[in-house]
Amino acid sequence: MTATHAAGRKLKDAIFDANQACNEAIKLHGAEKVTNATIGVVLDEKGRLATLPTVEKVFRAMNFADLVSYAPISGLPAYLDAVIDLTFAENKPEGFFGAVATAGGTGAIHHAIANYAERGDSVLTSDWRWGTYDLICNETGKNLETFKLFDAELNFNITDFAVKVDSLLKNQNSLLVIINSPAHNPTGYALSLDEWEKVLDVLKAQVSAGKKVSLLVDIAYIDFAGEKNSTRAFLKKFSNLPENFFVMISFSMSKSYTCYGQRTGALIGVSSSEKIIDEFKNVSKYSCRATWSNINRGAQALLAKLAADKELLPIYEAERTNLYEMVKRRADIFVAEAKSCGLRIVPYKGGFFIAVPAENPAEVCKKLHDDLIFAVPLKLGVRVAACSTPLEKMYGVAEKILRAMK
Amino acid sequence: MTATHAAGRKLKDAIFDANQACNEAIKLHGAEKVTNATIGVVLDEKGRLATLPTVEKVFRAMNFADLVSYAPISGLPAYLDAVIDLTFAENKPEGFFGAVATAGGTGAIHHAIANYAERGDSVLTSDWRWGTYDLICNETGKNLETFKLFDAELNFNITDFAVKVDSLLKNQNSLLVIINSPAHNPTGYALSLDEWEKVLDVLKAQVSAGKKVSLLVDIAYIDFAGEKNSTRAFLKKFSNLPENFFVMISFSMSKSYTCYGQRTGALIGVSSSEKIIDEFKNVSKYSCRATWSNINRGAQALLAKLAADKELLPIYEAERTNLYEMVKRRADIFVAEAKSCGLRIVPYKGGFFIAVPAENPAEVCKKLHDDLIFAVPLKLGVRVAACSTPLEKMYGVAEKILRAMK
Repeated sequence: MTATHAAGRKLKDAIFDANQACNEAIKLHGAEKVTNATIGVVLDEKGRLATLPTVEKVFRAMNFADLVSYAPISGLPAYLDAVIDLTFAENKPEGFFGAVATAGGTGAIHHAIANYAERGDSVLTSDWRWGTYDLICNETGKNLETFKLFDAELNFNITDFAVKVDSLLKNQNSLLVIINSPAHNPTGYALSLDEWEKVLDVLKAQVSAGKKVSLLVDIAYIDFAGEKNSTRAFLKKFSNLPENFFVMISFSMSKSYTCYGQRTGALIGVSSSEKIIDEFKNVSKYSCRATWSNINRGAQALLAKLAADKELLPIYEAERTNLYEMVKRRADIFVAEAKSCGLRIVPYKGGFFIAVPAENPAEVCKKLHDDLIFAVPLKLGVRVAACSTPLEKMYGVAEKILRAMK
Repeated sequence: MTATHAAGRKLKDAIFDANQACNEAIKLHGAEKVTNATIGVVLDEKGRLATLPTVEKVFRAMNFADLVSYAPISGLPAYLDAVIDLTFAENKPEGFFGAVATAGGTGAIHHAIANYAERGDSVLTSDWRWGTYDLICNETGKNLETFKLFDAELNFNITDFAVKVDSLLKNQNSLLVIINSPAHNPTGYALSLDEWEKVLDVLKAQVSAGKKVSLLVDIAYIDFAGEKNSTRAFLKKFSNLPENFFVMISFSMSKSYTCYGQRTGALIGVSSSEKIIDEFKNVSKYSCRATWSNINRGAQALLAKLAADKELLPIYEAERTNLYEMVKRRADIFVAEAKSCGLRIVPYKGGFFIAVPAENPAEVCKKLHDDLIFAVPLKLGVRVAACSTPLEKMYGVAEKILRAMK
């Protein structure tokens, strides 16, 4: 009965499948013996969802009318201001800014792809990627093309990036590029300042030749990548770009504020032209009204309050840093053991996940079940969730993956 | 910088403009002298957002992890079961059912239009309508065509409905029809059982001739339309429809649970074919993942808990009935006065709004400003919000509209 463009659409959910297999193993063998490295949220060392006490405190103190009133279609102004301040910290580029509230980071990416890529055109991102990019492109009538994130030495592959940009812009007048950095999902990679410079140079060359380029930076995991201002230093590079080079940043409250299921994020626009920002605000607001009307007011009010509270904000930041460090300790074990046993992994620099390149990820993951270890098979490798695997259970995982690959 | 399909999109927000004009008048003249009939939520007699104590009680009792965890992409199973039970009450048609959580009622309508109308085809709804239908069609690459909701005597215009269905299906193989009933926004109209029968007959004739018909029933205001089972009696008519006649119902927690800004609704599918329901669940889940990933878990858990609590549920229903009756008392005044002064209004049977047909709605609304009355000018008339106008201020409004029209 569906329209032809929707016919036969069905999600393949590797994460769900892996998690289900894990839960069956837990039933058989008990939770203590099973390592669940499939879950994409931060769990504490006892396997419970890790939440931030200060976020809960601000949330609980709100009156009910604030929680349940409609928000303005574009978002609460105080929320949007807070989003911009928190996103850039001390690294605000020169230019004009706009923001619109979205249904988490996903909603922000949806709006960017819906409005900044022509129907039938290709959007460009890296081969290692969050699979939802593919779905959003499909849903909105665009294609997704990829460049190789890494070269043979597992360095950032600027050559392949340049080749793919060039090849797509031979057939398109405009191009939307999506880069997920720092704490890339699913690899934990982060572009260095030098790599960012090279990426911008490639795009600026196209812009100089008259092409329209939009760059979407997905920073969903930025607060799990290191110190606040050093992880954000690259944002300063978006200063004074040409008018036909538009930058968007997708902000999410999911990870940084442990507000995953509250579905609150934002899409930020950066441009040297106020007119381009006005256009961005108008088309984004239109998409909001035509997709979800408005966004969870309670979560927006929470962020606005937290950001304005000079006493609570540093307490919240300290709590968040604790979570980050807990995840990092787990990842450090895996990375160190991978090095010592000779398991080749993608350079991990932060974030929820570590990735192991593999020829046959599904088989590797299946073999790992013998060790009662559950990870997620992706197209290019195996994803290990440092965010949710307890420290003690991380020991030995790298070596077991190495064995499973043989 | 936007893609060509998005270029120049900008919301015209008549409600926002009317409300802003009202707020300026309040600054000048004081709130007591001004009648704000623009706001689309239930306000109590003192002008504060009316919320339901039992809903707040259940919400406040939830633990934080339940509020902020991710929900499954399609929604919490207990929520979806509750949505189906609450939607049909004792009027469940025979057939198969499926549901998917959505960002309010808007999100449900988005998914129905996205997946059940061909790109480039026309969707059909009534001329008096919620303007967001137009935006969703535009955003998803469909057109919106309308039939006249009323004939010259302000009776339901089944003739024009049949003519428009026929004319569209001369050029299309499938058709999505949207009917907002009961408590139609913006008129307060509700189709009688007999009118529903005629609508279904028109559509069944097309289905018999081999066309695919999807019907979306928007019931956002159903709990402000009268007694639970009598307002839902028409749903029973969706029993055992042919396979190529698919029914969807958009459910919303916004009005019935005063959870407006929590952005939680659902799209329900009804079919005589389990296969069609499976397809519906698959394509809808895909659209969820590609638009907002998942929906506010807190609000879903709230509904699931409330629906399962045999003690609290009737208390909640009594609170909601109080709100309904408060709105009805206000509307009754307007309707009675309109009758006695000879103001011609659209037949109001329930809901948040009353509509007055007018040749020049903007001028009428502007003239009303002299009386410090603020209403919303629509294309076909003036919208008066019974949901938010205090009882005392409703007296005299009908007559002043009549005068403003002369």
